[in-house]
Amino acid sequence: MRKIIVANHVTIDGFFAGPNGELDWFVRDDQLAKYAAEQLKDKGALLLGRKTYQLFASYWPTPSAYEDNPILAPMLNDIEKIVFSRTLDRAEWSNSRLIKENIAEEVLKLKEQPGNDMVILGSGSIVSALTRLGLIDEYEFMVNPVILGRGRSQFEGLDGRLKMKLMKAEALSSRIVILGYRPMKDKPR
Amino acid sequence: MRKIIVANHVTIDGFFAGPNGELDWFVRDDQLAKYAAEQLKDKGALLLGRKTYQLFASYWPTPSAYEDNPILAPMLNDIEKIVFSRTLDRAEWSNSRLIKENIAEEVLKLKEQPGNDMVILGSGSIVSALTRLGLIDEYEFMVNPVILGRGRSQFEGLDGRLKMKLMKAEALSSRIVILGYRPMKDKPR
Repeated sequence: MRKIIVANHVTIDGFFAGPNGELDWFVRDDQLAKYAAEQLKDKGALLLGRKTYQLFASYWPTPSAYEDNPILAPMLNDIEKIVFSRTLDRAEWSNSRLIKENIAEEVLKLKEQPGNDMVILGSGSIVSALTRLGLIDEYEFMVNPVILGRGRSQFEGLDGRLKMKLMKAEALSSRIVILGYRPMKDKPR
Repeated sequence: MRKIIVANHVTIDGFFAGPNGELDWFVRDDQLAKYAAEQLKDKGALLLGRKTYQLFASYWPTPSAYEDNPILAPMLNDIEKIVFSRTLDRAEWSNSRLIKENIAEEVLKLKEQPGNDMVILGSGSIVSALTRLGLIDEYEFMVNPVILGRGRSQFEGLDGRLKMKLMKAEALSSRIVILGYRPMKDKPR
């Protein structure tokens, strides 16, 4: 089975976005870009919620994305994108496919198909939905050195607790800490 | 000036307590107890909010505390406790002193007194109040391998962001990760 790996920036106080979706607290440096490229290079698909899809689709194909992120931009434009949204009619970014319903079934089908592991970036609603369903295999958090006080969680509406096994703890570039986990049970309980 | 150091357990999703104050997700093992004793041994005082004070005062002086935590129990009973509460009339746990008003002034006075550094355990309302006032010098988080989905933050009501400098990132006993930070500015902004 192909794995699904969440790879998200978080604040020290556990948010993946500010209260209005702000992401301007992300640390940006070369070591982190290299790390993100390393993470992406053997992945078979990106799984995205609507908001992250729209944000990505409006940025990554542009000339300034290629200028600012010459390694990541072609990778993100080329990789297969699976977009989960009930409201979008089309997903026109290169190699994007829209899934409008039956997320659980569709994700299970994707996992059973041959291919490389899949990764979720951002997409809090998808992370929480798939976490509730026990469909996430690994979580990788890039802990940014900031406290926001308020913000959005990628684990809203969990029905119970999810115990994890620590797989990785590594300081990157002296500012970001990478924490890697695997769920110890199939679902939160 | 004496430093104030916050040393708190947190979940992966950033809570220091469950939605009803639950702390039963804390990892407990010998290595962690040793670490906590090491943290406490050169500290001049504990700063506590009412809830944490009452919890501690009802447990640490008991025989079962001495049985379960033979190293920590005498340390916590002996150390000076400063309790911040408007509603308590007395603080009768050994070496406790009650501060009912003017937290900012009283904490500044404590910092200016000679003595060893002070530590805050639990006490989310005190952590957030002193963080807002820019009076915390160091934060040490023990990240426990669990996602709760809901819970209480020790950084509620921050007026702005607090950027931090990463001082320590260390996996302890393969389950807990210690993340140590210092604020980069005097106050959140």
